[in-house]
Amino acid sequence: MSKIKVTLGIDIGGTNTVFGLVDEDGKCIKYTKIPTLGNNSAESLFSRLFEDLHKNFSKELESFELVGIGIGAPNGNYYKGTADNPPNLNWGFVNLRELVSEYYDIQVAVTNDANAAALGEMIFGAAVGMKNFIEITLGTGLGSGIVVNGELVYGSDGLAGELGHTTAKTGGRRCNCGLKGCLETYVSAPGIKRTVFKLLSVKKDESPLRKIAFEDLNSKMIYEAALEGDQIALQAFDETAHTLGSALADVVAILSPEAIIFFGGLANAGDLLLKPTKTYMEENLLPMYRDKVKILKSGLPEDEAAILGAGALIWHEINRY
Amino acid sequence: MSKIKVTLGIDIGGTNTVFGLVDEDGKCIKYTKIPTLGNNSAESLFSRLFEDLHKNFSKELESFELVGIGIGAPNGNYYKGTADNPPNLNWGFVNLRELVSEYYDIQVAVTNDANAAALGEMIFGAAVGMKNFIEITLGTGLGSGIVVNGELVYGSDGLAGELGHTTAKTGGRRCNCGLKGCLETYVSAPGIKRTVFKLLSVKKDESPLRKIAFEDLNSKMIYEAALEGDQIALQAFDETAHTLGSALADVVAILSPEAIIFFGGLANAGDLLLKPTKTYMEENLLPMYRDKVKILKSGLPEDEAAILGAGALIWHEINRY
Repeated sequence: MSKIKVTLGIDIGGTNTVFGLVDEDGKCIKYTKIPTLGNNSAESLFSRLFEDLHKNFSKELESFELVGIGIGAPNGNYYKGTADNPPNLNWGFVNLRELVSEYYDIQVAVTNDANAAALGEMIFGAAVGMKNFIEITLGTGLGSGIVVNGELVYGSDGLAGELGHTTAKTGGRRCNCGLKGCLETYVSAPGIKRTVFKLLSVKKDESPLRKIAFEDLNSKMIYEAALEGDQIALQAFDETAHTLGSALADVVAILSPEAIIFFGGLANAGDLLLKPTKTYMEENLLPMYRDKVKILKSGLPEDEAAILGAGALIWHEINRY
Repeated sequence: MSKIKVTLGIDIGGTNTVFGLVDEDGKCIKYTKIPTLGNNSAESLFSRLFEDLHKNFSKELESFELVGIGIGAPNGNYYKGTADNPPNLNWGFVNLRELVSEYYDIQVAVTNDANAAALGEMIFGAAVGMKNFIEITLGTGLGSGIVVNGELVYGSDGLAGELGHTTAKTGGRRCNCGLKGCLETYVSAPGIKRTVFKLLSVKKDESPLRKIAFEDLNSKMIYEAALEGDQIALQAFDETAHTLGSALADVVAILSPEAIIFFGGLANAGDLLLKPTKTYMEENLLPMYRDKVKILKSGLPEDEAAILGAGALIWHEINRY
């Protein structure tokens, strides 16, 4: 009897690296995490990772057939198999595909986490059967993975899909990337926090948020305040939705996707964010696009999504032709 | 000896419809035009068109083998083969593919003029060998055709690629489409005229443009005034380039194309428009995209481009697999 095939999905984060085995039906058979320790080299991360794998996954590696390794990494470049000077990791430019190939002589593919999430969504999640959609990850930043004609859009250099760094407001908020007014300075967990502080400065409403220092405030507190009817928090969600909805209308005019799918912490705010976002998006659409584009929440389980996405990268390669 | 194969390229414009035979090397063997007479039906246009074709192209239709008919039409929908309520034509929704199939039992494909131009560019023009680029047509509007992974982006409904209706300025100029602040209200022949009139109202510079009524001014006059050093005209080009460059930076962040290629009347302003556009685009790019994206002028001969693009639509279908 032939063994069931699995892929190894690896998601490299600023703090932790999670990895696990993913079968063709999107079942995450087993997974674990290790600290990324971004001040050390990529070599040392993968040395620890494969040591852990051999120690703790030995039974699974015997009973299943490992057919490929998919890696989601910050600034992951699909064409080159590299991570290009990833922020928060002291790596510079490093070829992860070559590095991993030293451990296993099987297919290895690399992309960034949002692209991996998009593939996971297409193969296992809310985008099954879709050929044109956009995955948006909302967390400390705004990432995006774009699927056109059933394929990820990598662009000419493997680095496409940075919707978070399109300009939401000319000359607006300073972004980590060096530019100003980037969408993610408004629409992300830190973005909505900045909006709250702007509103606290502009408005006179009483609010429990006035008791919390900038460094102590997080998006969950804003969400909870909004659920309690706090006007500052509610308006912060509304302004965030307005900025996001306008940006999505532009993306729809360019790509005409079937759906826009949200994943990650802030996306869990659900109706508080996504419902007004859809309304603002529709207001800014050409008539011919109206009432067509679905706004959806991810269909991937949150704790396994990054691994499923990275694992899907290989399943997509294998099943493409 | 087998006959040389040709496609019939048809470009339907608001005033004239041009059509001609295109061989596989992008040679336009013969072409002509007839008035579109947009108040009449699409049926009557094609009846006149094929009558003209049989009368005037009879020799060519005998010596070549006609393998397909490609149509560039306003609001042309590739998936459905329709023109969906095209502006300036009193047609409503009409299925051009079915209509033309009554005359010829060969492959028929329909898209809009900017998409056809993009395919023409990829097969015969400045984008030969490119897999990821954007074609922008600048004229009375701003049209765009987007190529990703060597295929046109039609989106989920066949209507993708309306870069001209992304928002350049929130709450800005009123657009024909019903929205406000659309990119084409700033970047197009009428757009730069509107900018000139804004500048005439704001500034005190003397200018020959102060002698010309709104309805009499055209973009060629603005171009010529700029060449003479007129400050109003020069600033109008600079503002147009600034708006366009910022919009292109957003598109690059989303799609990371190899090149952005300009076609049409206003694109002929060349260095006056495209050079500062590139500068403003670069200023707004994430560092990882800088100094990579080419800004090019179309490689298609202007008078034949629309026919070559429509003809290319069929060549692309035939040679795809």
